[in-house]
Amino acid sequence: MPEPSPDLLLTNATLATLQPGRPYGLVEAGAVALRSGRIAWAGPAAEMPAEHAGLPRRDLGQRLLTPGLIDCHTHIVFGGDRAREFEMRLEGASYEEVARAGGGIVSSVRATRAAPEEALIAAALPRLDALLAEGLTLIEVKSGYGLDRETELRMLRAARALERLRPVRVVTSFLGAHAVPAEYTGRSGAYLEEVCLPTLRAAHAEGLVDAVDGFCEGIAFSPKEISRVFDTARALGLPVKLHAEQLSDLGGAALAAGYGALSADHLEYLGAEGVAAMARAGTVAVLLPGAFYTLRETKLPPVAGLRAAGVPIALASDCNPGTSPLTSLLLTLNMGCTLFRLTPEEALAGVTREAARALGIADCGMIAPGMRADLAAWDVAHPAELAYRIGFNPLHTRWFGGLECN
Amino acid sequence: MPEPSPDLLLTNATLATLQPGRPYGLVEAGAVALRSGRIAWAGPAAEMPAEHAGLPRRDLGQRLLTPGLIDCHTHIVFGGDRAREFEMRLEGASYEEVARAGGGIVSSVRATRAAPEEALIAAALPRLDALLAEGLTLIEVKSGYGLDRETELRMLRAARALERLRPVRVVTSFLGAHAVPAEYTGRSGAYLEEVCLPTLRAAHAEGLVDAVDGFCEGIAFSPKEISRVFDTARALGLPVKLHAEQLSDLGGAALAAGYGALSADHLEYLGAEGVAAMARAGTVAVLLPGAFYTLRETKLPPVAGLRAAGVPIALASDCNPGTSPLTSLLLTLNMGCTLFRLTPEEALAGVTREAARALGIADCGMIAPGMRADLAAWDVAHPAELAYRIGFNPLHTRWFGGLECN
Ligand SMILES: [Zn+2]
Ligand SMILES: [Zn+2]
Repeated sequence: MPEPSPDLLLTNATLATLQPGRPYGLVEAGAVALRSGRIAWAGPAAEMPAEHAGLPRRDLGQRLLTPGLIDCHTHIVFGGDRAREFEMRLEGASYEEVARAGGGIVSSVRATRAAPEEALIAAALPRLDALLAEGLTLIEVKSGYGLDRETELRMLRAARALERLRPVRVVTSFLGAHAVPAEYTGRSGAYLEEVCLPTLRAAHAEGLVDAVDGFCEGIAFSPKEISRVFDTARALGLPVKLHAEQLSDLGGAALAAGYGALSADHLEYLGAEGVAAMARAGTVAVLLPGAFYTLRETKLPPVAGLRAAGVPIALASDCNPGTSPLTSLLLTLNMGCTLFRLTPEEALAGVTREAARALGIADCGMIAPGMRADLAAWDVAHPAELAYRIGFNPLHTRWFGGLECN
Repeated sequence: MPEPSPDLLLTNATLATLQPGRPYGLVEAGAVALRSGRIAWAGPAAEMPAEHAGLPRRDLGQRLLTPGLIDCHTHIVFGGDRAREFEMRLEGASYEEVARAGGGIVSSVRATRAAPEEALIAAALPRLDALLAEGLTLIEVKSGYGLDRETELRMLRAARALERLRPVRVVTSFLGAHAVPAEYTGRSGAYLEEVCLPTLRAAHAEGLVDAVDGFCEGIAFSPKEISRVFDTARALGLPVKLHAEQLSDLGGAALAAGYGALSADHLEYLGAEGVAAMARAGTVAVLLPGAFYTLRETKLPPVAGLRAAGVPIALASDCNPGTSPLTSLLLTLNMGCTLFRLTPEEALAGVTREAARALGIADCGMIAPGMRADLAAWDVAHPAELAYRIGFNPLHTRWFGGLECN
C-alpha cells in the first residue's frame, strides 16, 4: 500500500480491542487515533489525550470496531475444482471410483501443475475477495499442490502477487511436504531429498518463504520425515508449523513443539502429551472446523485440555479444494462455537489476536497503541453477534494500514 | 413489481432447468426467451423457434442459469436478538440460567410483542437482503413469535410489506400454534380457543394468510391440538403444513398428510409410517439442515426412505433466532449435502422445483415455458459448484418476473 494513510480519529464506537483482561477487551463509547497507518491511541473517548483531539473525525455510529480479521491457515492458491468429485461421492461413488475418475488431491496437483502463474492468481482472487468482504486484513497462504520445484515456486509467487493486487497482507508457508506426488509413490524419502528440500532452499533464496509447514499423517509424512524438513527449515532460519493429529495421533504436535513451532494445526486426535508439549513451547493450536465439518469428523479437538493448559487457540478457514472449500471467516467463527464449543470471545480472539500469534506477527490482531491500523467496523452492537449468525455479513467498513478500503 | 418487464432473449448459457428427465434438467449452449415477465421458450439455442430470434439479446458468457432460489420455510420476521443467549450457553450456562436471564423463545416473543410493525420490517430486511444477494426470488415467512392477536397480525402485515420493499414474492404462513405463551402455561387448549384460532380467522379475513402451520412436539402442541388448528384451516379453505418429528416421533407428519398437507418440515425422527403417509398424500418433506447443525442433532432425517418412497424433498433455511440464525440458501445447499448426504442435484431441486411444490406454487421453480421469469445467473460452470463451496456467493445476475435486479 504505497499511498499515505490519513491521520484520523475514529469515534463513537464500541471497541473489541482483544486486549487481555476483560471479555473481548471491550471498551464502550470508545475512540481510536490513527497516525501514519498505526494505532496511536485507543480507549474510552472521555479519556482521550488532548493531542488527538484535533484529528479529522469519523463517527462510527456506535458500531462495533474490531481488529481486522486474520486467516492463519489457507490453501487458496490452487488450480482446478473438485465440485464434480464432491458430487460423485454424494452419488455413492467409492474412493476408488473417484480416484479412477481423476479425483482426490492428485487432481488438484495435476490442475495446479498445468496452470500458469496468472491462472493461479486469477483462481485465487475470488476466494481472497470473499474473505476480504468479511473484514480480512492478513492471510496466510500455503504452497503444496505443486510437489515439484517449478510449481511450488509458482504457487508461492502467486501468493506474493495477491498482496500487490488487493489491500491485504500475505504471509506464505512452504508446504512441499503436503503429499507424496504420484511419481514418487512409495519413495517419500527420495521425494524429500530430491525435490522438497531443494525446492525449499530455492524458494527461500527467492524470498518466497515466511514459514515451513508439513503434513504429518499416515497418508503423508512420518514424524521422522517431518524432522528432516524442520531441520532444513532451522538451518535456513525459518519458523515451522505442522498439520498434525488430524486423522490419528502420531505425536506430530509434540514434535513440532520441540522445534518451537509457531503452530500445530487440526489436532482432533491430539493427546495429553501433545497438549503439554505445546503449552511448554507456546505453540498455538490452530483449529480448523471447516475440515471437521466437511469430513463429518466426530472426534473433537481437546478444547478443554488446551484451555486448561493455557495453549493459545486460533481458528482458520483451511480453505482448500478437498476438505474445506470454505471462504468465510465469519462462518468459521460460528463453526468454532457450534461444533467445537468455543465461546464467541475465544472464536473472535482466534481470528485476531491468536491468529497473529500463530503467524509470529506482533503488530496486528489487537486494537492497541503501536499496532498497524488494520481494523473492521461492523453493523452489530455486541461482538457475540459475529459468531452467532450464520451466512450473514455485517461488515460496515475496513481499514488496512489506516486506509479505508470498501 | 409494477414496471413492465422487457422482452428478452438470454443466450450463451448452461441451463439447469430442473425439468425432470436428466440431471438438473441440464441444457448446454442454451437460450431462454422471456416475454411479458414469463418464460416463453427455453432449450438449446440451435433449436430455438424463429419467432424469438428478433428479441433483444443478453449474452450470459456461458454462465449457469437456474431458476430463482426459493426459501420455503423461514421465520425472518421477529424482534430482538439471541446472540447473548448463544454466548451464555457456550460459556456453560444451564437452560435454567438462560431462562432466568430472559432467554429462550420467550425472549423473542417479548421483543416481537414490543416491536412496532416498522421495527419488525426494519429488522427483517437485512435478513431478506442476505438471502436476496444469493439469488432468492420467493420466500415463505411465518408468524409465531407474537402468540397474541395483535402481534401475530402485525408479523403477517410486516411479512406482506417486505414484498412491497424488495423485488421478491412473499408467501405467508400463520404459525399461531408455534408455542404456548407464558400467560397460558399449562392451558394450551385455552390458548388455541381463545387466541390462536380467533386470530387465524381475523388474519385470514384481512388476507394475510396463505397457509396454516403448527409445531407438533412435546414442548409445543399435541397431534390432537394440531388437528383442531387444521380443522379450522380447512374450514377457511387454507392449505396446511407442519413442524413435525423434529425432536421425537409423535406421528405429526402422518397427521399432516391426512389433511393433504403441502409439507411436513424437519422430520429427523420420522418413521416408516410417516414416510408412507407423506408419499400417499404427495406431502413434501422440507429438510432444515441449519437447525440440525445448530442443535448438534445426530439423528438424521430418513433420506433414503423418503427417496425410496418417492416423497419430494425440499430444503430451507428455517431462518430463526433460536435454532437456525441462517440467512444463506447456498450454505443450506452445502449443509443438505454434507450433513444429510443429499446429492447436489437433490439439493438444488430442493430450493427450486420442490420448494415451489412445498408452497403449492405452480408457476416457478423450473425453467420451462409458462413459468415466471424468476431466474439467477451464476459465475460457475456446473451446478454442483453451488452446493460444493462454503461461504462463497457466485451470483452474477438475477431476474425477478423478467426484470433484472442487481
Ligand atoms: Zn491445511
Ligand atoms: Zn421453523
